Amino acid sequence: MPEDATDHRLMARAIQLAARGLYTTEPNPRVGCVLARDGEIVGEGWHVRAGEGHAEVNALAQAGERARGATAYVTLEPCSHFGKTPPCANALIDAGVSRVVAAMQDPNPQVAGQGLARLRAAGIEVDCGLLESEARDLNPGFIKRMQQGLPWVRLKLAMSLDGRTAMASGESQWITGPQARADVQRLRARSGAVISGADSVLLDDSALTVRAAELGLDADLATAAAASQPLRVLIDGRLRVPLQQRLFREAGPVLVACADTQQREAEYRHDGAELLALPGEQGRVDLGGLLQELGRRGCNEVLVESGADLAGAFWRAALVDELIVYMAPRLLGSRARPLLDLPFDRMAEAMDLDVTDMRVIGRDWRITARPVSSFRE
Amino acid sequence: MPEDATDHRLMARAIQLAARGLYTTEPNPRVGCVLARDGEIVGEGWHVRAGEGHAEVNALAQAGERARGATAYVTLEPCSHFGKTPPCANALIDAGVSRVVAAMQDPNPQVAGQGLARLRAAGIEVDCGLLESEARDLNPGFIKRMQQGLPWVRLKLAMSLDGRTAMASGESQWITGPQARADVQRLRARSGAVISGADSVLLDDSALTVRAAELGLDADLATAAAASQPLRVLIDGRLRVPLQQRLFREAGPVLVACADTQQREAEYRHDGAELLALPGEQGRVDLGGLLQELGRRGCNEVLVESGADLAGAFWRAALVDELIVYMAPRLLGSRARPLLDLPFDRMAEAMDLDVTDMRVIGRDWRITARPVSSFRE
Repeated sequence: MPEDATDHRLMARAIQLAARGLYTTEPNPRVGCVLARDGEIVGEGWHVRAGEGHAEVNALAQAGERARGATAYVTLEPCSHFGKTPPCANALIDAGVSRVVAAMQDPNPQVAGQGLARLRAAGIEVDCGLLESEARDLNPGFIKRMQQGLPWVRLKLAMSLDGRTAMASGESQWITGPQARADVQRLRARSGAVISGADSVLLDDSALTVRAAELGLDADLATAAAASQPLRVLIDGRLRVPLQQRLFREAGPVLVACADTQQREAEYRHDGAELLALPGEQGRVDLGGLLQELGRRGCNEVLVESGADLAGAFWRAALVDELIVYMAPRLLGSRARPLLDLPFDRMAEAMDLDVTDMRVIGRDWRITARPVSSFRE
Repeated sequence: MPEDATDHRLMARAIQLAARGLYTTEPNPRVGCVLARDGEIVGEGWHVRAGEGHAEVNALAQAGERARGATAYVTLEPCSHFGKTPPCANALIDAGVSRVVAAMQDPNPQVAGQGLARLRAAGIEVDCGLLESEARDLNPGFIKRMQQGLPWVRLKLAMSLDGRTAMASGESQWITGPQARADVQRLRARSGAVISGADSVLLDDSALTVRAAELGLDADLATAAAASQPLRVLIDGRLRVPLQQRLFREAGPVLVACADTQQREAEYRHDGAELLALPGEQGRVDLGGLLQELGRRGCNEVLVESGADLAGAFWRAALVDELIVYMAPRLLGSRARPLLDLPFDRMAEAMDLDVTDMRVIGRDWRITARPVSSFRE
């Protein structure tokens, strides 16, 4: 499509609006919409949460009659099917918009292009692909799930500059600073599920919840984010974590993945948790099967927060899309625990990464990297 | 001193000029000088190498008669003593400059201020402290040596993202890319000495030389840098490294520090190397004593390139001023060799760092950090 400064500016605004749904739209995608006439904005909207209005409908409501003859900038192809709400393509047609610019097609290969086709059939001028890369970055999980049925998996680790996570004894708390911890809270908040392992939960008695006060967001956004807690998933092959742990005591859904339920479903259900057997090899939980299950449940993005053992298992099984490492400016020494349990003996086994981002987070650094073979959204 | 945009611009230029001596001035400091009248440059100079003209003298030679009534911007207080060349303070007085702006005083506490005092006594207006921090960054080693008799010690390490330097077997070559290796060449070139240990030299057969073609500098600078090779220092407590190794075969001075010379001085001298006994504890070489010796010999900056063992020994002895870590975007796994041999058991032993710089070097990242307790130049 032809580049145009006004189109560019208005799509950039639509992407900003979409990002307001970062912590609340799961299982839906983050979508923003701007309606403009002669380059002047007459309506703005974004999707807040499932069951509520889509971005286009919210923008149309704001624009009212001024939508007639306007251009609609949407970060994702308008839907053409009846879901919880009527199709947005129809709403745009009915409102009389004359042009639609979409940043990207629907990622579901079975429906991609149908919304745009319906608009074109109604005589609306349609362009697609403006700021596509930025629009895709809003929804790595939704895109992957639509295409592969699997969530986008982030593996979060905190290490010292010498690549260590804790002392050999397990002593570990607070190696990164408060800003890094707030950043992790925001990672949790944008995820549909947070996964941890029995050893970590036993060691730290972590709750894995999103806590409004620790998000570092403005009050409205923080409250909304904390109100839609991610599913907390405990991988506990042999059911070693007692139901007295904080994980089970805090409000919000918990799923315990085990190798064998030992017929204890009722016991767990009594404490508000769901017990699911996903037997894998050698008495371990089938991690790939777990991700498929989370995909079926509508999880777009999943955050793995665990020790080197489980983190290494996810990595070795090639299930990780993104590695997020918080690096503290300290040396923990050569006896301390490794970042990931990866028992390589030869250089040929070493795994290459694409470092996609590195930035200061308080007094720490955050490194974002992807395995070179990763799914490319 | 009062801030003035013209003064600022001309001192910034003098600092640029000083940096041209980065690879050649040892044991002298890098110094630049600009002479200007009414804000217009009439002469520029920098110090190239010991025994040749100082920055002020070079700038005065370029300015000729136009130096009369000019302002001199110098990155370091002009010298007031007779060394290999006559004092620059006298030269500035004789040339008739009316004002001198220095970025910093002479770091030697015994002479600091004497050059400026002589200028003032001759009726010249003198200011000191403009862009001082930038000027100090030119000469961390010279400053430390003048104040403590010790060189500035950089410890260079190359690691994977998970903090590993090589496989357990020792397999290690090329974990970082060519740009990172060129950066290491430039670090060597700016150093008065490069230190390595017997294990590394035996494993890699490294020569530790500066190679013009690998510096990534323009041809003139590269040739000059390679022409003034750093002293190569091998720490070989028990004289295990045979004289057939490349280290001894390549041109340029070599110093072997051992715990006991075993009366083999003549044998080493025959191969162009100096053997020096610096017995420390438990049959090891006294690393602090070695640095004092290098300071006495006029080394301003020293680069340690070694394995985890020796690197850890320097670090544990609190002899490192700056840690320079090249981080390759790979995972070498949890069996691979650690960054530094630091056998800590408790979190309280962990050492805090100040990360002063982090940047992309080709496909790798370079992290510069200082121990929190480091000497502050």
